[in-house]
Amino acid sequence: MSIESDTLSIFALGGVYEIGKNMYVVQYGDDIVVIDCGSKFPDESLLGIDLIVPDISYLLDNKDKVRALVVTHGHEDHIGGIPYILKQLNIPLYGTRLTLGLIKGKLKEHRLKETTLHEIQSDSLIELGAMKLSFFRTNHSIPDCLGIVLDTPEGTVVHTGDFKFDLSPSNKQFPDIHRMAGIGEKGVLVLLSESTNAERPGFTPSERLVGERIEEVFQKAQNKIFLSTFASNVNRLQQVVDAAIITNRKLLLLGRSMVNVVAIAQELGYINIPDGMLIEAKEANSLPREQVAVLCTGSQGEPLAALSRLASSTYPHTEISPGDTVILASSPIPGNERNVASMLNHLYLLGANVIHGSSAASGMHVSGHGSQEELKLMLTLMKPKFFVPIHGEYRMLYQHRQLAESVGVESDHIYILNNGDVLDIKGENVQQLRKVTAGNTLVDGLGIGDIGNIVLRDRKHLAEDGILVVVITLSRTEGTILSGPDIISRGFVYVRESEALLGEVSQLVIKTIGDLQENGNDGKWSILKHRIKESISKYLYAKTKRRPMILPIIIEV
Amino acid sequence: MSIESDTLSIFALGGVYEIGKNMYVVQYGDDIVVIDCGSKFPDESLLGIDLIVPDISYLLDNKDKVRALVVTHGHEDHIGGIPYILKQLNIPLYGTRLTLGLIKGKLKEHRLKETTLHEIQSDSLIELGAMKLSFFRTNHSIPDCLGIVLDTPEGTVVHTGDFKFDLSPSNKQFPDIHRMAGIGEKGVLVLLSESTNAERPGFTPSERLVGERIEEVFQKAQNKIFLSTFASNVNRLQQVVDAAIITNRKLLLLGRSMVNVVAIAQELGYINIPDGMLIEAKEANSLPREQVAVLCTGSQGEPLAALSRLASSTYPHTEISPGDTVILASSPIPGNERNVASMLNHLYLLGANVIHGSSAASGMHVSGHGSQEELKLMLTLMKPKFFVPIHGEYRMLYQHRQLAESVGVESDHIYILNNGDVLDIKGENVQQLRKVTAGNTLVDGLGIGDIGNIVLRDRKHLAEDGILVVVITLSRTEGTILSGPDIISRGFVYVRESEALLGEVSQLVIKTIGDLQENGNDGKWSILKHRIKESISKYLYAKTKRRPMILPIIIEV
Repeated sequence: MSIESDTLSIFALGGVYEIGKNMYVVQYGDDIVVIDCGSKFPDESLLGIDLIVPDISYLLDNKDKVRALVVTHGHEDHIGGIPYILKQLNIPLYGTRLTLGLIKGKLKEHRLKETTLHEIQSDSLIELGAMKLSFFRTNHSIPDCLGIVLDTPEGTVVHTGDFKFDLSPSNKQFPDIHRMAGIGEKGVLVLLSESTNAERPGFTPSERLVGERIEEVFQKAQNKIFLSTFASNVNRLQQVVDAAIITNRKLLLLGRSMVNVVAIAQELGYINIPDGMLIEAKEANSLPREQVAVLCTGSQGEPLAALSRLASSTYPHTEISPGDTVILASSPIPGNERNVASMLNHLYLLGANVIHGSSAASGMHVSGHGSQEELKLMLTLMKPKFFVPIHGEYRMLYQHRQLAESVGVESDHIYILNNGDVLDIKGENVQQLRKVTAGNTLVDGLGIGDIGNIVLRDRKHLAEDGILVVVITLSRTEGTILSGPDIISRGFVYVRESEALLGEVSQLVIKTIGDLQENGNDGKWSILKHRIKESISKYLYAKTKRRPMILPIIIEV
Repeated sequence: MSIESDTLSIFALGGVYEIGKNMYVVQYGDDIVVIDCGSKFPDESLLGIDLIVPDISYLLDNKDKVRALVVTHGHEDHIGGIPYILKQLNIPLYGTRLTLGLIKGKLKEHRLKETTLHEIQSDSLIELGAMKLSFFRTNHSIPDCLGIVLDTPEGTVVHTGDFKFDLSPSNKQFPDIHRMAGIGEKGVLVLLSESTNAERPGFTPSERLVGERIEEVFQKAQNKIFLSTFASNVNRLQQVVDAAIITNRKLLLLGRSMVNVVAIAQELGYINIPDGMLIEAKEANSLPREQVAVLCTGSQGEPLAALSRLASSTYPHTEISPGDTVILASSPIPGNERNVASMLNHLYLLGANVIHGSSAASGMHVSGHGSQEELKLMLTLMKPKFFVPIHGEYRMLYQHRQLAESVGVESDHIYILNNGDVLDIKGENVQQLRKVTAGNTLVDGLGIGDIGNIVLRDRKHLAEDGILVVVITLSRTEGTILSGPDIISRGFVYVRESEALLGEVSQLVIKTIGDLQENGNDGKWSILKHRIKESISKYLYAKTKRRPMILPIIIEV
């Protein structure tokens, strides 16, 4: 479908029908503004894959039109894809100071230098082609988050970013409710609002409550305290620092991302730590246990992060002892429940006093996303003509649609878009008919997008039942077996206990070759390979109910 | 350590420090009674493994002493290991009618016939060597559950099995509270009690509430109803049948285990379904949608079970249409959250009205395990001298210990045992010092216990980065390359796009062989293989940051 040049088009390249890899596009005529560029972690079916980032074919095909990448905040699902995308498409980047600080760290790791970074604040105004952008401050589980207002000739588009309405934020950065009301008063054509907690009734509690609870536990604890939370939750880190100050504890940071984020946040003035308060492991070990607090990564039970290694007593120079307090200021992300449960068991075994956020009574965690009443508040403030729920799996988008209807958005003005579905608006003409390319780009080591279905299918096959390689050397002239068959297996059976089985496979290969030669088919390798595969596969399945990958290799000399 | 022959020994071969594969042993002198023989599912790190069952080395070493396997109830984590164990150790089996019915189904599948099955009821009395066994009825999420009382010369041991105190059970099979009180009055030396919900405060709600809620939804639903729950929850199935009768719906069963369990339960009289009520898919399709209810497997989002396939519209002859009601009468077991979430998204996409048990408001699921107040009630009724919390991960056993202390069990009379830890009691002499062999036996296809760390490590390696096979044929006499190197890869890179890379690997192999021959090392295969592995591995990691398994194969002719 061709569209007229002065049409407003809105779509996601990632972030809907899923949690993660957020990337939204607003295009007016020849001007494209990209909002966020996130990554997500693969589930266990994507064997060996390190990371998933959005497929940006559409942007590459329209390189000349892309004016900027504007980033709402510094979480991985909003910035994690940037280094991979920048390798293919060099565009100017806009974000707040902390967001840029975190992005710079990433670019350095990937040795990317050429990009232009523009710092914005909540009162910035920028012009990108036919679009004028302004911003409003929101609260979330990382400081310095923005919602984006895009004034286009067709009308105003608002993208909320991730938000909650924390009306008593611990860092005193209140949400810009008056500005939001003003934006709504002036008229919003399309609202894109995040849906993470659209299934959760009520109003998400203030981060301040977590701070009070942390202080309470710090006051009571007799020994060392270990607290684990997402490093990017800088406001929570500040509350931990404050509790440590009040209770006269020095602070040890463990885990790469904790050390990094605290350094960036300190440098940029987002966290305040008195001089001399941060100590190294050696000093921590020399102090009385009640004078030390440890702030560490690993609240999701990630096997290589600090807390998991502390739990299994494999972290260097620091250990958890009976009577220490361990706080998980977090809630397990779906998929991490088993790792967290296993880590909790180890912590209990060490004799620690464990307080974890997933038990409702603990009070050690609140969500960074607004619940149903907050989503309704945003919808009410913005009074959009059209509504597109974003940032969530289908059932969350669906629930968000219901919420929008409940506050008065007209049912046929709500569009649930899948990644790549385009909403085109020109005057009274509004339609969701077009599709652009969208999907997952898989990152494996240095390879970006080179791993496809065939490779993954092979990995899955190898993972289930291993591989059996059969090597035979045949004489080119006479077709006789000069060497082999050699049978080599990996991941199939324990070879030392399976000599008889592998011996029979060898006999079977010889017989298969003989049978074929008798029938005069000896010259055709493809047939020979196929027959060997077939006969071994059948034999092994009957004997073991396993189906290893069979790789026949025939050498002619 | 040698122990005196008239000692009472208690230990677990599975079921503690874990959820699943329950197997407990009570031994007095030369008489061994085994309680339960469960299986558990592997987590994703055990690639290709189908099932985990207990390591029964101890029982095999003491074959002549094993008097019986007594089974508390028919859940997989209590009976799933039986077919695998019976292949190695033929012992008489005791269980209630339904439990034996379910076990018979398993034995038939595995073509095992020789075992003696003894049916018991809650008032049975059996003598096994020096031990006298009696029983008491409990409630759980399957009918016909027993707790076991073992009278030994040393004193009475009580094993609760899985239980809750459902004081208004939907099947009117009330818990034997008076008998439990009587057992406690007579004196219990050791109580083994299950710990699944030891972390959950309060009292688990009655199954009857689920029945009321099911009826309510059946009354309201306008279209077809799909309800999924564990097939073994026969009382809940009966409640679904009852709701279908009241609302004039015929019933279609989908999923192998649903069909099997209903057949067994019907035959044995545990479920009552009026004649003509059960229909086939064809008939269901010809009836008005409001006259059909479907009872199906798959409430945990298992990809091959009925509900997942219905959700992805790949189930034959039956489909979910907009306006249908889908009920998940279940709560996701840790590890299944992602599968369930993905299935829910698909169900919403089909336009179904979805009610799932994991949302607290749904009321569609209650646990089959007693919460803290019920565990305290059991401890109070039994008044044990010694207490061993069983059936749970460490943190649950730990919480159960706290509960026992809170009702007055002496702290140093509580023993948390790991699998294999033995509690020995002789008179006043009570100690936890000995260990017997215990562990996981992995089942992969027909292989029971033949998959060890090496095979699993290889599978993991193959799963992450695939394999690269390098084949070279050398002349035995001159050491020259007669054929190859042939490079074959699977699961590493997409070969068609990686010809250049694989070409360079080939060159590298030739160079490595040349270098070695110059240095006069050409005769030693092991060195040659090692060098090839090393150089390719280094090269590929630099180029791709991946580490495929390298398998050099050298043929001499």
